[in-house]
Amino acid sequence: MNFKLTLQYDGTDFHGWQMQLPSQRTVQGELTRALSVIEGRAVVVHGAGRTDAGVHAEAQVANVRLQRAITPEKLRAAINGNLARDVRVVEVQTVADDFHARFAARGKTYRYCIFNAPYMSPFYARYAHQEARPIDIERMRHAARLFLGAHDWRAFSAAQTRVRTHVRNLTKLDVTERWSMSGRGRLIEITASADGFLRYMARSIAGTLLAVGRGELSDEIVARAIRSGDRALAAATAPACGLTLTHVYYE
Amino acid sequence: MNFKLTLQYDGTDFHGWQMQLPSQRTVQGELTRALSVIEGRAVVVHGAGRTDAGVHAEAQVANVRLQRAITPEKLRAAINGNLARDVRVVEVQTVADDFHARFAARGKTYRYCIFNAPYMSPFYARYAHQEARPIDIERMRHAARLFLGAHDWRAFSAAQTRVRTHVRNLTKLDVTERWSMSGRGRLIEITASADGFLRYMARSIAGTLLAVGRGELSDEIVARAIRSGDRALAAATAPACGLTLTHVYYE
Repeated sequence: MNFKLTLQYDGTDFHGWQMQLPSQRTVQGELTRALSVIEGRAVVVHGAGRTDAGVHAEAQVANVRLQRAITPEKLRAAINGNLARDVRVVEVQTVADDFHARFAARGKTYRYCIFNAPYMSPFYARYAHQEARPIDIERMRHAARLFLGAHDWRAFSAAQTRVRTHVRNLTKLDVTERWSMSGRGRLIEITASADGFLRYMARSIAGTLLAVGRGELSDEIVARAIRSGDRALAAATAPACGLTLTHVYYE
Repeated sequence: MNFKLTLQYDGTDFHGWQMQLPSQRTVQGELTRALSVIEGRAVVVHGAGRTDAGVHAEAQVANVRLQRAITPEKLRAAINGNLARDVRVVEVQTVADDFHARFAARGKTYRYCIFNAPYMSPFYARYAHQEARPIDIERMRHAARLFLGAHDWRAFSAAQTRVRTHVRNLTKLDVTERWSMSGRGRLIEITASADGFLRYMARSIAGTLLAVGRGELSDEIVARAIRSGDRALAAATAPACGLTLTHVYYE
């Protein structure tokens, strides 16, 4: 039976999603360990995408094929019983045998969270990037429109040669603000949806929008970075802690 | 100069507010250490109230008298620079010399948070108590009205003899629900305001309301517990992690 798992994790204490060295704690590694115990043999867990070290997920998706007969409800409880509290399976569904979490994914949404205050709230320290300087979100919103559509994202991703193409279609880039739970801190959230994200792409877009919000980067430079693919024109990649994978889309 | 400090802390890794053994990490202890370094001599930090181990604060209040001339803004930055990231001074104000954070406090508000789902979200594990069973919040709301007003809270507090009276006036007890950030988990929040809280009072009221919500306790038993002061009639005290001090009121 092929199972689709929807996962949440606090990425703070993980070396990202993908299994690497045995000494490094990864989400895929923890899940594989828990599922191999349940199945009684080594299993392979496929994730929809690799989140980097420190990046969180509200709804990462993975799939795993098990021989053991078990209901989705019981599988969820069994996996969660074998995981530390910073990662949880929130939903399990049975899916067609040929479902593959990565190959079937049609798009993703990420949220980047900025805590805009002269201090960092203890309640957001793990999940947001602090910016003490004033931020003009209208400037950010204006610049955000330049990013929309299909572009070659070379200027906004890690130098990598393993991808076939750097073209991705960004379908949504919203900048919103709200108050923190205590009503004392201003949270600025950047929500980005695309048919796919290159490595560092979400954080690079966030870092560039943040530089625009601080008044350090003009729309003209942003447009030029997008057109030219020149990394030197984009701002610094924003820190991992502010980023959360919020949705993976399937047909 | 007398300074009023408004503080936030994630209580998870603290043995509560009050300084105790030197080996135990407390919020008052960390603040006292940071302020003594700034002042260059030992100082005394008075808190509005003692939160227990594991209890959080969005707006705890404290005061400290310093000889050193420093602006509120600079004092905030100096203190925060000497604290770990799970505690932060969010506001500093200069106040009258006779202001005392505890004696001047006229009331407090606490919020108790319940994550009502078959799994515990990693994002709420530190700040909410998980309850997998169904909860009827209408039953909780109905019972909440019984608690309002001035009562002897002997049945809903720690056995203690150091208080002059067990009478406190509960002015607000609301039960609300909302979705978690991811839209997948149901959060039930109990908000309680009173002119003062006895030790364990907020968590005891929360535990009793939760038992009502699970259908284990009737309004009649609750009313009897309040009238009689019989601890055996109240439900178990709810765990510390779900409790947050959200306001301290002054004239």
